[in-house]
Amino acid sequence: MTTLYGYFRSSAAYRVRIALNLKGLSYDQVPVNLVKGEQHGDANRARNPQGLVPSLVVEDGQVLNQSLAICEYLNEKHPEKPLLPADAEGRVRVRSLAQIVACEIHPLNNLRVLKYLVGEMNATEEAKLAWYRHWIAEGFTALEAMLSREAGSGDFCHGDTPTLADLCLVPQVYNAERFECDLTPYPRIQEIATNCRALPAFAQAAPEAQTDAPQ
Amino acid sequence: MTTLYGYFRSSAAYRVRIALNLKGLSYDQVPVNLVKGEQHGDANRARNPQGLVPSLVVEDGQVLNQSLAICEYLNEKHPEKPLLPADAEGRVRVRSLAQIVACEIHPLNNLRVLKYLVGEMNATEEAKLAWYRHWIAEGFTALEAMLSREAGSGDFCHGDTPTLADLCLVPQVYNAERFECDLTPYPRIQEIATNCRALPAFAQAAPEAQTDAPQ
Repeated sequence: MTTLYGYFRSSAAYRVRIALNLKGLSYDQVPVNLVKGEQHGDANRARNPQGLVPSLVVEDGQVLNQSLAICEYLNEKHPEKPLLPADAEGRVRVRSLAQIVACEIHPLNNLRVLKYLVGEMNATEEAKLAWYRHWIAEGFTALEAMLSREAGSGDFCHGDTPTLADLCLVPQVYNAERFECDLTPYPRIQEIATNCRALPAFAQAAPEAQTDAPQ
Repeated sequence: MTTLYGYFRSSAAYRVRIALNLKGLSYDQVPVNLVKGEQHGDANRARNPQGLVPSLVVEDGQVLNQSLAICEYLNEKHPEKPLLPADAEGRVRVRSLAQIVACEIHPLNNLRVLKYLVGEMNATEEAKLAWYRHWIAEGFTALEAMLSREAGSGDFCHGDTPTLADLCLVPQVYNAERFECDLTPYPRIQEIATNCRALPAFAQAAPEAQTDAPQ
């Protein structure tokens, strides 16, 4: 059995849920409560030495960490409904869009980072929010430009089927909404997110649809 | 001709230089001076809407952004001397090690982030340094554990040839040294970095070997 150790609100776990759903794979979910600090416990550190989520334990027992690496693995093991285009030129574009979120926006707004800002650097709530919104605006401005002007875009980030880029984008849009970022400057991002969310694979992966979400 | 727009000290450009060298590809380099702010100019933003480096312009004119996406592209187009193992289990491990650096350490210590901490949040030089070293220690502690205990490790992060993981690790070690982080808790990381640096592909990619480095 495939088991996902995650948390309903973790962007990175959310990406993996979407990938698993798009591939039509069945999996168990075990919540690791980030607010209670369970990610720092021995059980989670044994799976993930960074004390982060998600980890995916696959059928042969291998423990996989890092959401994009996990999604690439799932895509290699289950090539149907590909998460990457068939051509190298398309793949580099999709990975690049995904990495704008995964390497430039999300790492800065992670829970552990916000905690450090408040706990170690005495950031006010206002400064923390400004930080959060700043990095989303920086990344989304670039993404919006690329999604608007580049020929590769379609109903989704790349063409008319969801890819690795979409499964990074949608959780980031969720975070932006949660922190009340103004999304009006990003009509293409909003449009693509709407198209994604209309698919069951995305809807069923949403934080509010998870069993560890507050009712 | 392939042209790399980068900066001698940019970790992400350094990764791409290593990849190009390992593949034995020839390329021109055009420096984008990050200290002078050239990354925010129109010329760079036309290539890279985020105002970052590196960008790689390949022979057909396509502009590639995001260092890991670029390295995957180079690896696909030039399969000899592979940067990823042949098995999916190995590939997910290598990508995961690479992403610990690229998604969890480096994004937090980027120049634009340090500038924000000082300029917008009034961080002192001491607080900035503590921040820098904190995220390296967090990531390197996890990496050291994985590189020590996991069977996949060898002379390099994975086995006995350099992979995507090594070309993320070495620039991060360079940054750690530059900011005088204590590396004694990480003997495996140091050993692997030493093995990498003994290879011409790594040595020739080092910041101090670039034409835009101060003499």
